[in-house]
Amino acid sequence: MKKISVGLLGFGTVGTGVVHLLTNDQQRLVQQTGSQIQISKILVKDREKSRKMDQYDHLLTLNPSDVIDNPEIDIIIEVMGGIDDTRKYIHRALKNKKHVITANKDLMALYGTELLQAAADEGCDLYYEASVGGGIPILRGLTDGLAADRIKKLIGIVNGTTNYILSKMSHQSVSYEKVLQEAQSLGFAEADPTSDVEGLDAARKMVILSHLAYSIPVTLEDVKVEGITRVAEEDIQYSKKLGYAIKLVGIAEVEDDEIDIRVGPTLLPFNHPLASVDNEFNAIYVYGHSVGETMFYGPGAGELPTAIAVVSDLITVVKNMAYGINGKHIFLPLQEKKCKSSETVESQYFLRLHVKDQPGALSKVTGLFNDQGMSLQKIIQEPLLSGNLAEVAIITHTTEQQRFEQIYQLLKDLEDVIDVKSYYRVEGMK
Amino acid sequence: MKKISVGLLGFGTVGTGVVHLLTNDQQRLVQQTGSQIQISKILVKDREKSRKMDQYDHLLTLNPSDVIDNPEIDIIIEVMGGIDDTRKYIHRALKNKKHVITANKDLMALYGTELLQAAADEGCDLYYEASVGGGIPILRGLTDGLAADRIKKLIGIVNGTTNYILSKMSHQSVSYEKVLQEAQSLGFAEADPTSDVEGLDAARKMVILSHLAYSIPVTLEDVKVEGITRVAEEDIQYSKKLGYAIKLVGIAEVEDDEIDIRVGPTLLPFNHPLASVDNEFNAIYVYGHSVGETMFYGPGAGELPTAIAVVSDLITVVKNMAYGINGKHIFLPLQEKKCKSSETVESQYFLRLHVKDQPGALSKVTGLFNDQGMSLQKIIQEPLLSGNLAEVAIITHTTEQQRFEQIYQLLKDLEDVIDVKSYYRVEGMK
Repeated sequence: MKKISVGLLGFGTVGTGVVHLLTNDQQRLVQQTGSQIQISKILVKDREKSRKMDQYDHLLTLNPSDVIDNPEIDIIIEVMGGIDDTRKYIHRALKNKKHVITANKDLMALYGTELLQAAADEGCDLYYEASVGGGIPILRGLTDGLAADRIKKLIGIVNGTTNYILSKMSHQSVSYEKVLQEAQSLGFAEADPTSDVEGLDAARKMVILSHLAYSIPVTLEDVKVEGITRVAEEDIQYSKKLGYAIKLVGIAEVEDDEIDIRVGPTLLPFNHPLASVDNEFNAIYVYGHSVGETMFYGPGAGELPTAIAVVSDLITVVKNMAYGINGKHIFLPLQEKKCKSSETVESQYFLRLHVKDQPGALSKVTGLFNDQGMSLQKIIQEPLLSGNLAEVAIITHTTEQQRFEQIYQLLKDLEDVIDVKSYYRVEGMK
Repeated sequence: MKKISVGLLGFGTVGTGVVHLLTNDQQRLVQQTGSQIQISKILVKDREKSRKMDQYDHLLTLNPSDVIDNPEIDIIIEVMGGIDDTRKYIHRALKNKKHVITANKDLMALYGTELLQAAADEGCDLYYEASVGGGIPILRGLTDGLAADRIKKLIGIVNGTTNYILSKMSHQSVSYEKVLQEAQSLGFAEADPTSDVEGLDAARKMVILSHLAYSIPVTLEDVKVEGITRVAEEDIQYSKKLGYAIKLVGIAEVEDDEIDIRVGPTLLPFNHPLASVDNEFNAIYVYGHSVGETMFYGPGAGELPTAIAVVSDLITVVKNMAYGINGKHIFLPLQEKKCKSSETVESQYFLRLHVKDQPGALSKVTGLFNDQGMSLQKIIQEPLLSGNLAEVAIITHTTEQQRFEQIYQLLKDLEDVIDVKSYYRVEGMK
């Protein structure tokens, strides 16, 4: 039987999961690939660190070259994270004609195109299913399952930390700060949660998804990003009353060959398939011209779910080796990039305002919208407990962003309006 | 550029969708496959019937041999339905070294293994993504995306007609008969809806899914099937009050190498991902040992969604031709079949009873469960408007089927119980 030799870069959470699967599922892997897959070397930062699996201690190395330049190794699994060194290692591994599987979203969002081109040039495979949506096979869904369709819109709940925080804020009516602390203690949020809560992690994943769904070479700079730190309990409670959940979503939409790509807290109507995706789960909603609405749901992170994505890629690479078709299944973004101007992007909006609690205040607010020719879909007014104020929450009809911004300014300047506390986009139903 | 010639068997709803996509998306198909795909012949039953697309009239034929024995044709797309003739045509096409794509769930459920074996023997492809879940790429999800995992449980809402009927019954509080009529007039149900409402269509799809998820050669006879015709409005209303939706689901579960496979109306807690899958949509929930919960959601039928699945298969076949790897990606059920004995399958149950509306009646019912050592999770009693009766709805804790059946008999014989109106299984959360 053919023997396939695998080298790991990194032996952290995902690496441990991968080694666990390769160790315990040998027989299934043989059945699926017709090959014997063995681990030859594992690059670590610290040889002495205590690990769950000590039977591989003799394979550990501190020297990257023992893995990436090792002539015995056929396939590199990169689960060390990081960008600059990792990028170099992968380039060198590809030069050495090794196939690469990576779970590294940061790297693929920044240098994916360059690395994929290098892989194609060398006739090597480069798979990265684990980089988006953990155990959800969404990249294959886009490249193979929906290959025949033209995608019109992607909406992704692609960050488990922020989804956990917003779900808990919604279901337990507690503040952002309190839930963040709880999430940190449970391991659902990092000690430094910036990249998650500011939406950067989601933005990276949306770049990767957009390359595959649209074949458009968007970069991180093209993504308008807003995090969840300014989402207040009141926003969530009023959204609920109006029939919506607030989720941190990435949206990538193509219209007339122009792409709009953004990440931010967004209201989704309760009957939207994404609205009930809660806690640490991820889901990617894909709207295709012909297929209509589809959604892929599952665990967005975690040792074993992410390892399943990596090892499923590994099975594909080993089969490709048997068939001699490595490097054939590489999707490079081939279309020209044209970004839609923000001002013309259309959306519904949610607004929450504080107004004076006196006769005529609400009518001034609605009068302003009316004078500006923008109609409202829903409105709630409730008295505030303090300060002789009332709180007003509004869902507008669809409008262009620049038009909304004009009205937002006028609203802030309106005499009876004390403050516009918040506003978010609202995703309608198709 | 390489030219690929396709022959269609059938030109009904899905066939029209396929021809539509092949006509309008030529350029994308060339980009994706590097080949020019053209339609050469289309087998129809009636040449004179008026069709949406008349530019293909010159390709129509009444003679199957013009398609399946045509030396110019590389790939057969079977969208004619039916079983006996279709099976022969596909066998003959494979003998003629033509690759086959089919949307035919009835055929694949009955003769899938035989046809796949024939394809493998001839070195031909046989893909059938469209046979389950319409536009949802669930077969690829199981064979490729989750390749590395051992699946523990599949729960599928795989029949759009029954899901539409149960959703409407739930949201509009109307009877089965009334919604069925409405569904028929809207085209969501056939004039003869037997195969859908009796659960047979769902059973066929569960057989196909089980072959791929478990590699176990189950047959239709192994599926315990129950339809939705006895689901009453009251069942749905009491389920709602208890926190559950009633859905027609197929469940295929493997434990200790034994498979249990069934289709029937089942209660799902509202926080289950499948509970909010409504109307004509389908979804397949996949529970893997390592990945945990995933779900694939989308349109279960329809001209274009189903055609997307067919043409995505076509793209794969054409790429396989370019790589010379046709017939390599065939999944035959290789495990030994051991079916779990029904009696030992464990589940929670929902029961709805009519009891005498008098002191002590409810306590006799709960006393019986208590005496039999079965605990109850939830119970509601409400008076009925007529007949001095009360209605009781119960959710039990988990128990073996044989144990439940014993208690069911005792309950029917209990003095104050007038009738056990209905009972269904309840799917818990993992």
